[in-house]
Amino acid sequence: MTNVAILGFGVVGGGVADLLTKNEAEVTKLGKDGINIKYILDLRDFPSSPFCNKVVHDFGVIVNDPAVDTVIEVMGGSHPAYEYTVAALSAGKNVITSNKEVVANFGDEFLALAEKNGVCYRFEAAVGGGIPVLSPIIHCVRQNRITEVRGILNGTTNYILTKMFTFGESFEAALKDAQDKGFAERNPDADILGTDASRKIAILTALVTGKLVPTDKIHTEGITGVRHEDVVASEKIGRKIKLLGRCITDGESLYVTVAPFLLSSDMPLSTVSGVYNAVEVIGEPVKNVMFYGPGAGAGPTASAVVGDLMEIMRSSDNSVVPTIKKCDGISDFSEFKSSSYIAMTGVCPACVKAAFGEVQYIDAEGECAFITPVMTEGEQLEKIEALKAKGGVIKSRIRLI
Amino acid sequence: MTNVAILGFGVVGGGVADLLTKNEAEVTKLGKDGINIKYILDLRDFPSSPFCNKVVHDFGVIVNDPAVDTVIEVMGGSHPAYEYTVAALSAGKNVITSNKEVVANFGDEFLALAEKNGVCYRFEAAVGGGIPVLSPIIHCVRQNRITEVRGILNGTTNYILTKMFTFGESFEAALKDAQDKGFAERNPDADILGTDASRKIAILTALVTGKLVPTDKIHTEGITGVRHEDVVASEKIGRKIKLLGRCITDGESLYVTVAPFLLSSDMPLSTVSGVYNAVEVIGEPVKNVMFYGPGAGAGPTASAVVGDLMEIMRSSDNSVVPTIKKCDGISDFSEFKSSSYIAMTGVCPACVKAAFGEVQYIDAEGECAFITPVMTEGEQLEKIEALKAKGGVIKSRIRLI
Repeated sequence: MTNVAILGFGVVGGGVADLLTKNEAEVTKLGKDGINIKYILDLRDFPSSPFCNKVVHDFGVIVNDPAVDTVIEVMGGSHPAYEYTVAALSAGKNVITSNKEVVANFGDEFLALAEKNGVCYRFEAAVGGGIPVLSPIIHCVRQNRITEVRGILNGTTNYILTKMFTFGESFEAALKDAQDKGFAERNPDADILGTDASRKIAILTALVTGKLVPTDKIHTEGITGVRHEDVVASEKIGRKIKLLGRCITDGESLYVTVAPFLLSSDMPLSTVSGVYNAVEVIGEPVKNVMFYGPGAGAGPTASAVVGDLMEIMRSSDNSVVPTIKKCDGISDFSEFKSSSYIAMTGVCPACVKAAFGEVQYIDAEGECAFITPVMTEGEQLEKIEALKAKGGVIKSRIRLI
Repeated sequence: MTNVAILGFGVVGGGVADLLTKNEAEVTKLGKDGINIKYILDLRDFPSSPFCNKVVHDFGVIVNDPAVDTVIEVMGGSHPAYEYTVAALSAGKNVITSNKEVVANFGDEFLALAEKNGVCYRFEAAVGGGIPVLSPIIHCVRQNRITEVRGILNGTTNYILTKMFTFGESFEAALKDAQDKGFAERNPDADILGTDASRKIAILTALVTGKLVPTDKIHTEGITGVRHEDVVASEKIGRKIKLLGRCITDGESLYVTVAPFLLSSDMPLSTVSGVYNAVEVIGEPVKNVMFYGPGAGAGPTASAVVGDLMEIMRSSDNSVVPTIKKCDGISDFSEFKSSSYIAMTGVCPACVKAAFGEVQYIDAEGECAFITPVMTEGEQLEKIEALKAKGGVIKSRIRLI
């Protein structure tokens, strides 16, 4: 019998308790002796919950109980998740989390601490909710020369962009709809500014390269600048706008970014709609493989958490997860090369040609919209500055992929 | 140092040797002491290959060499792959294969023999080529109550259907194009009759249910009956025709089938085009997750084979793969319920209504095309027989999903 403690009885914590109860047959088949939820830590009481007799308010009860094998941290946020994780690992307990923030900030430290204490730290649910992403990367593709990992890592922003694309809605209207449906928080900043996606691409980058890049070093753009006009322009060139997290490795260079990109319609990521997530891994000789599914929600996230639990119960082999070390030294984003869609006012085609050379124009009402040749960020920004100096006003810039 | 022997130096065998050589850095990082290709078994010599000095013609050399840890069987076909696999496992060697035919026919026997001899038998490459499918099912989703596994399991037929759909080509023209491009064999029967897909859905069914269903018990239809007219009709109702392998479990019932289905455009499998494959797993509480990528080819298949090799080198834990037993007793397909698109000539709407009740008509030139209500196979066939008795001629029937 394995005794677990769940930290946080919110959406995900409730989902984990539900799964362990409702799918007891499936879980017992895999987990051999079965699993007992010994404690649930929360500030609140849950008098009407079937789990009410498990609820404790003091983490000390959990960390000091030697019968607890595994702590499931589904509280979210960096603190006290960090302190509880350190205490649990130090006490010789496995820790499983769905908390991308704490993994992106301290994952290297937790993995080292787990190794030192002969226990496991796992975080499949931190990226892509219920989609198996981290496990297949670890188990199935690392013998490849991986050149890129990219993904639609945030369901809220993908829902908003899908609404803007499918129904011609403005960003503001689509955001309001997402909030009304419960897909977006009242304060949607972590989603729409790209913060959530930046944590997830940091975790993916760490698994693939061993380098944990601080999220403040990741060039991050949200979707607040995406306009209805840009959606119209994207349709004219047969592309879709998606917020992507990308980790691109090429020899010594390593670019990590979160930004809206214009995807051609033959890219599998372009077909991912609504609140779904997907992660694509590109490498030699596997080419491109993609993992797709619901990126959030109680059930899917609980599936990933319990999947980690089953794996730990089967084998507490720590060599599964690669060694991860903090890394500040990623490539300067000003050297990142792309072709961009640019919309400006106050410029004439002759000025654009003088700055960018031959461009592809997109018919746009009241704006000069065009696709630049491939060049570095630095070059693009310099040319835009030159056009601004001549009276040009930039309305939008979205990179192609 | 791990010594491996590759059985068969064709496309996949060459791909495996290439990967182990070109990605030596990645492989050594994972495989610790590195991997040595000690033998390559083939009837032919390869004097101009860099691996020519590894080639042997006698399997006895390999099976009797105690230094060989792992045998990679990429010959295809049931015999002598079966005999070589039994001999290698019995001699205490791990076996990895990409050979779906031998897994679908004898996988239960091989897994039991591996268990008995304390070695591993692995076959990730047998389904979906380079796509991680079997590993994520084993490692990540089995704690779910899985109700269905379905997939586009054959790239050749998906390429043909994509060509028919995108360019309005006939089946014959699209098949010829696939043959010219090397996607289809000169004798394309195993692909277009659904045999290849039936082996793969048998393997997926075994992993999810523990039951290895003989392929001759699987209701299998190929794509040879799909006509240009059906593609036109599918467009009119906003659906796409895909050859799916499906394993549906519902309480005590277990349906396993390969057949063309009409997919609604919001199904992720409907977006899978060309030679790509994808497998979707549906369960509670994970909902639906999908694995997508190149379903064949030297590089992707080699990636999956070497992925299995890395996993075995890391941990020879046999409890990873579930126990699989042969099972003849699947549900009678005549009880399978669906709604079907039917195209007939020689019938009038009144007769159709008398047989099927209210149906949805599709405008079709010279034919009576309609969508039936949901009913069992048995009921559908009975009603079609009644219409035939009145002079009706059936042109096509494709189930909806």
